[in-house]
Amino acid sequence: MSSSWKNRLSLFGESHGPGIGVVLNGLPPGFFVDWAEVSSEMRRRAPDRSKLSTERVETDSVEILSGLFQGRTTGSPLCALIRNLDTRSDDYAEIRDKPRPGHSDYPAFVRGGGFNDYRGGGHFSGRLTAPLVFAGALVRQILRERGVSIGAHIQRIRGVTDNSFATADLSPQLFAALSAEFLPVLNKAIRPALERVILEARAAGDSVGGVVECAILGLAPGLGAPFFDSVESALASLFFAVPAVKGVSFGLGFALAERLGSESNDAYYFDENGRVRTRTNNCGGLLGGLTTGMPLVCSVAVKPTASIARPQETVDLRQGTAAVLAVRGRHDPCIVPRVVPVLESVAALAIWDLMEGGGG
Amino acid sequence: MSSSWKNRLSLFGESHGPGIGVVLNGLPPGFFVDWAEVSSEMRRRAPDRSKLSTERVETDSVEILSGLFQGRTTGSPLCALIRNLDTRSDDYAEIRDKPRPGHSDYPAFVRGGGFNDYRGGGHFSGRLTAPLVFAGALVRQILRERGVSIGAHIQRIRGVTDNSFATADLSPQLFAALSAEFLPVLNKAIRPALERVILEARAAGDSVGGVVECAILGLAPGLGAPFFDSVESALASLFFAVPAVKGVSFGLGFALAERLGSESNDAYYFDENGRVRTRTNNCGGLLGGLTTGMPLVCSVAVKPTASIARPQETVDLRQGTAAVLAVRGRHDPCIVPRVVPVLESVAALAIWDLMEGGGG
Amino acid sequence: MSSSWKNRLSLFGESHGPGIGVVLNGLPPGFFVDWAEVSSEMRRRAPDRSKLSTERVETDSVEILSGLFQGRTTGSPLCALIRNLDTRSDDYAEIRDKPRPGHSDYPAFVRGGGFNDYRGGGHFSGRLTAPLVFAGALVRQILRERGVSIGAHIQRIRGVTDNSFATADLSPQLFAALSAEFLPVLNKAIRPALERVILEARAAGDSVGGVVECAILGLAPGLGAPFFDSVESALASLFFAVPAVKGVSFGLGFALAERLGSESNDAYYFDENGRVRTRTNNCGGLLGGLTTGMPLVCSVAVKPTASIARPQETVDLRQGTAAVLAVRGRHDPCIVPRVVPVLESVAALAIWDLMEGGGG
Amino acid sequence: MSSSWKNRLSLFGESHGPGIGVVLNGLPPGFFVDWAEVSSEMRRRAPDRSKLSTERVETDSVEILSGLFQGRTTGSPLCALIRNLDTRSDDYAEIRDKPRPGHSDYPAFVRGGGFNDYRGGGHFSGRLTAPLVFAGALVRQILRERGVSIGAHIQRIRGVTDNSFATADLSPQLFAALSAEFLPVLNKAIRPALERVILEARAAGDSVGGVVECAILGLAPGLGAPFFDSVESALASLFFAVPAVKGVSFGLGFALAERLGSESNDAYYFDENGRVRTRTNNCGGLLGGLTTGMPLVCSVAVKPTASIARPQETVDLRQGTAAVLAVRGRHDPCIVPRVVPVLESVAALAIWDLMEGGGG
Repeated sequence: MSSSWKNRLSLFGESHGPGIGVVLNGLPPGFFVDWAEVSSEMRRRAPDRSKLSTERVETDSVEILSGLFQGRTTGSPLCALIRNLDTRSDDYAEIRDKPRPGHSDYPAFVRGGGFNDYRGGGHFSGRLTAPLVFAGALVRQILRERGVSIGAHIQRIRGVTDNSFATADLSPQLFAALSAEFLPVLNKAIRPALERVILEARAAGDSVGGVVECAILGLAPGLGAPFFDSVESALASLFFAVPAVKGVSFGLGFALAERLGSESNDAYYFDENGRVRTRTNNCGGLLGGLTTGMPLVCSVAVKPTASIARPQETVDLRQGTAAVLAVRGRHDPCIVPRVVPVLESVAALAIWDLMEGGGG
Repeated sequence: MSSSWKNRLSLFGESHGPGIGVVLNGLPPGFFVDWAEVSSEMRRRAPDRSKLSTERVETDSVEILSGLFQGRTTGSPLCALIRNLDTRSDDYAEIRDKPRPGHSDYPAFVRGGGFNDYRGGGHFSGRLTAPLVFAGALVRQILRERGVSIGAHIQRIRGVTDNSFATADLSPQLFAALSAEFLPVLNKAIRPALERVILEARAAGDSVGGVVECAILGLAPGLGAPFFDSVESALASLFFAVPAVKGVSFGLGFALAERLGSESNDAYYFDENGRVRTRTNNCGGLLGGLTTGMPLVCSVAVKPTASIARPQETVDLRQGTAAVLAVRGRHDPCIVPRVVPVLESVAALAIWDLMEGGGG
Repeated sequence: MSSSWKNRLSLFGESHGPGIGVVLNGLPPGFFVDWAEVSSEMRRRAPDRSKLSTERVETDSVEILSGLFQGRTTGSPLCALIRNLDTRSDDYAEIRDKPRPGHSDYPAFVRGGGFNDYRGGGHFSGRLTAPLVFAGALVRQILRERGVSIGAHIQRIRGVTDNSFATADLSPQLFAALSAEFLPVLNKAIRPALERVILEARAAGDSVGGVVECAILGLAPGLGAPFFDSVESALASLFFAVPAVKGVSFGLGFALAERLGSESNDAYYFDENGRVRTRTNNCGGLLGGLTTGMPLVCSVAVKPTASIARPQETVDLRQGTAAVLAVRGRHDPCIVPRVVPVLESVAALAIWDLMEGGGG
Repeated sequence: MSSSWKNRLSLFGESHGPGIGVVLNGLPPGFFVDWAEVSSEMRRRAPDRSKLSTERVETDSVEILSGLFQGRTTGSPLCALIRNLDTRSDDYAEIRDKPRPGHSDYPAFVRGGGFNDYRGGGHFSGRLTAPLVFAGALVRQILRERGVSIGAHIQRIRGVTDNSFATADLSPQLFAALSAEFLPVLNKAIRPALERVILEARAAGDSVGGVVECAILGLAPGLGAPFFDSVESALASLFFAVPAVKGVSFGLGFALAERLGSESNDAYYFDENGRVRTRTNNCGGLLGGLTTGMPLVCSVAVKPTASIARPQETVDLRQGTAAVLAVRGRHDPCIVPRVVPVLESVAALAIWDLMEGGGG
């Protein structure tokens, strides 16, 4: 009962089953989808073949099974299917009994009574974010027609910190430029340092996490609702639906805990067009669960990839003994760049739902 | 559509209207409520008369309108009503036109088309957390019968930092001891420093925020669901429903962004009773949206009270001019202590919903 | 999970507890409520003092606890409370152990594990329809501003049959005229016969049921959704939420089972204003779960009042023996006239929800 | 907001698009599905090649895309896909502009802004009931393990009336025997008459509807909830989700309107095993929105197939003129036999949801 998100978007599939996909409900009829752009968004999430990412090939070709007629949405549920192709199941034989630390393997085993598809994480796999990006890419086009744009950059990876959106000149153009980069940052000078910490982690058979900052432009003031249907609740609920996310904050977030009220409140003024604006945006464009009309800014903490080559202590669930596991196969030393479009996508879904009357 | 929480718990009321309250659906029949304990929880949230809090008197006497018969729950909706008594509406005359920076006044005005009850924040008032604590106090008694207990402490206020739950010996007894304190901390030695920063803020007509750490014990592994109905989504959605919350994280949260995977993954072992446990709990008892069976640990960032006595820049919405506002009335220099039981309460509500099949 | 109606409208209270009421979510802000009309609607449901109804006095004075400010809705949840006054609990002492045939007493006892409030049916009481009529009366005013009007008449009581809406000239004026009558019928000539069958039932310590026909005007074509969110599903779901309702049909309903397709299909034509209309309206203004733009017409079967004075066979749940029960107290020989405004009210709620995007 | 059924079951597809299907959420893990039985149920709904049905070939081979591993459910969403094969789109070219009377064509055109897939009714097609039967067949196996069985028979087609479940000896065996027949009836002597009225309709280029009676055995008393989550609301909501359904009633339904209370109330007694039973079952096993423990019995009215060969008056939406339409292609003279397994299936889904805590 906690969430009715499945009402709008039904996600299905296992990493090594026949396929993964999504059913999207409530799309407007007659929308002409820019499929090249959808593909482009999906490539952002797909594994890169550079040394910074996994070498797995995920050619995520999407088949639209319904909801599309003569190139336009019909207003009926749109189902998109991605077949699973490159699936080396034997890589995962060991983890059936020895849950990988930091992964869902153990609690998924308990929840599924041992009947869960353990191969590659099954339904819990990060691969399920592909249909999320598909859905988000589509919905972002709808939002763009309403003047809403969404962007994100890597705020921090292991001590290497980018500038903040707070001091940037936010625009759809900036967002487009960021989304063209594998390592989207505001301060391009830090890119070599970012690459270095990622490659160091890879060389050590290890991994790194990071923080992503996300912004949404074009939201009118007053969107949202107090309490259960706050904009923060809607966004956070979907951000935490993304595997590996461990923290979400709005505006200055946890840093506000160090400030005085007089340093935190955003002073109001009328701009040249008579619109109410705030001098600062410490609250991230949100007050009382509602948008203020200023850019919505939030941060999302992503933990390091759990799959690492270094040997780790675990248990053998079948034999009831201690065990050691070195995760084989090809894994990302840093999933943060691939998580960026996923976060943008779920943000788009959350905002779309709010604009469609999701709140109350 | 984003949340169906109102399905379980319908919150109503305005700060200066006839009353505030809540309708709770889905309570089990025959539950014998410990009303003294409910009152005690509500007193934790009520304004203290000490110098650390507001001097407002909120005698929140609750009237049960339904769902109770011969001292026990009937299994039908329980409606609880708290009448508004001490309401000096004239304190708020000025804010009708001049929205308070950091408050919901301006976006609530836009959302309500100017018809919102602006007095004291109306429905957006922090006062609405009283029925939340009522509901949480009741539900916590139900959870306790199922072996689940919830506790919290102040992790940090303006540079004064408490120990972490990570190094504490968590138990229902510890939680009970913490909840008996106005400033619940693990390291009692910091209490004078905490009081000092709060009183300094008050003396300066200012305010401070802080971070609250919350823990939940007794959860079996495998509770929750991947993606939209993750435990993190359920908890974060309700934490962000609490006014002034700007950040939520699980386990090490944002600090995980600085760590290597090998420093983050929690190694598994069998304990003396053959149960699977982890050596560390960096993930806060949650993996893949599911509980691991370890203590669930999370942190919540609370911004400083927006209502401060110091003059602030704002606008006059009626006259369309710049304005200066000094919020009059009695206000908390630090709401963090009063937010602690609210966070515990909504955590209880989220867990209860998950245990009742809220997920999917 | 089956219904999220509690999301919009949270009903609470027991027949003999402190009070009954409702929380309405999602009302638009700034709506100026005509309270005299709301009272008038509630009087239609209230027990009449004529011989045709119960002699109980239900002075349902409603207190608005929230969501109203300076005479207008605020856009926040509106809670309405009706105190229980005339409650002779001793009338119900016997039914604690001896469930009344035809009433919810026995299954409610099982569901509540014996902890349900059995007095007067508790939360299952028909009295809970008072807040439903309150909510419906308010929502009907909102619908009227959008050009939608709702009316109903008694189609049949024990062999006395009224004309059908199919042959009537439907208009808001007709609906207003009908709602002014205790026995709303199209053919006034049948009124004496209707009164006679009701009084005969009363004289015999017995009761009668009946069929109500309901119509909704002003709906644009294309409202609704196929399958789960069909208009029929939405309306039927709420009609069956009304105690004593045992059947719901649309258009010719069960009579269509006797017809040929060529006698059932409604032929299309363009009217003088170029609008698509149908020559007949056998489908009741609904095809494929959507409105056609023709009047929406439906029928609702109401069973006879279960509480009758005649002795009935039952069981003694405490003693485990057979028993005989003659329900004491004051009861309606025919609740159909009082159910009419309840059905109009829930129809209004269903349509309002659909227009607000309830479907998918 | 009206229904959260899509939460459990997401239906997708258009009659002449790539495929149709369903995503089922909330299945228990480890369930071993009897696929032969699922196929058998789907064949009941598939078009027969006899003269009593359409001659279209629908070889509905189902592909399971997710949620199944090593023959058992995983507890993750199960997606089933049925490819569309025999689709003569040219049969439908005419109805793009000339909506078929009695079909969803016109309101679907308005709702979809002209962008709906009009071929064969698109997403509104009766073909979408195939995945519903698939889902129902699977869920019925789960219900059977809990002692619940569901059956149905044709109650009436154009004046030919079967016996009632009220006088039958209900059992899973009877249900199995009924489901083996294309024309499931209790009184086999009426079968020739049934066939005759269907063949007469076919010969005349016309169609007939009918009434289906459905029963559910094995439900414990007290299942359900009063008001919005009543068992009647849950069942009716799904019955009316089935295309062509125009009426739903429980127990004696509309016939109760003719009875006295003393003739309607079901008297209680203790049976030989000390269980509370009723002498009659006029209420159809439901009181106050809850099950009584007696068989749940309901009736569903199905209108005649709208697609008939006889010329019908319609409009040309493109040219804005009157038009005549004779629906070409192969169509059922009577869909009632094929609707029977669909109604059983959605009844299974509704009961499953209620047992899983769907109510409140």
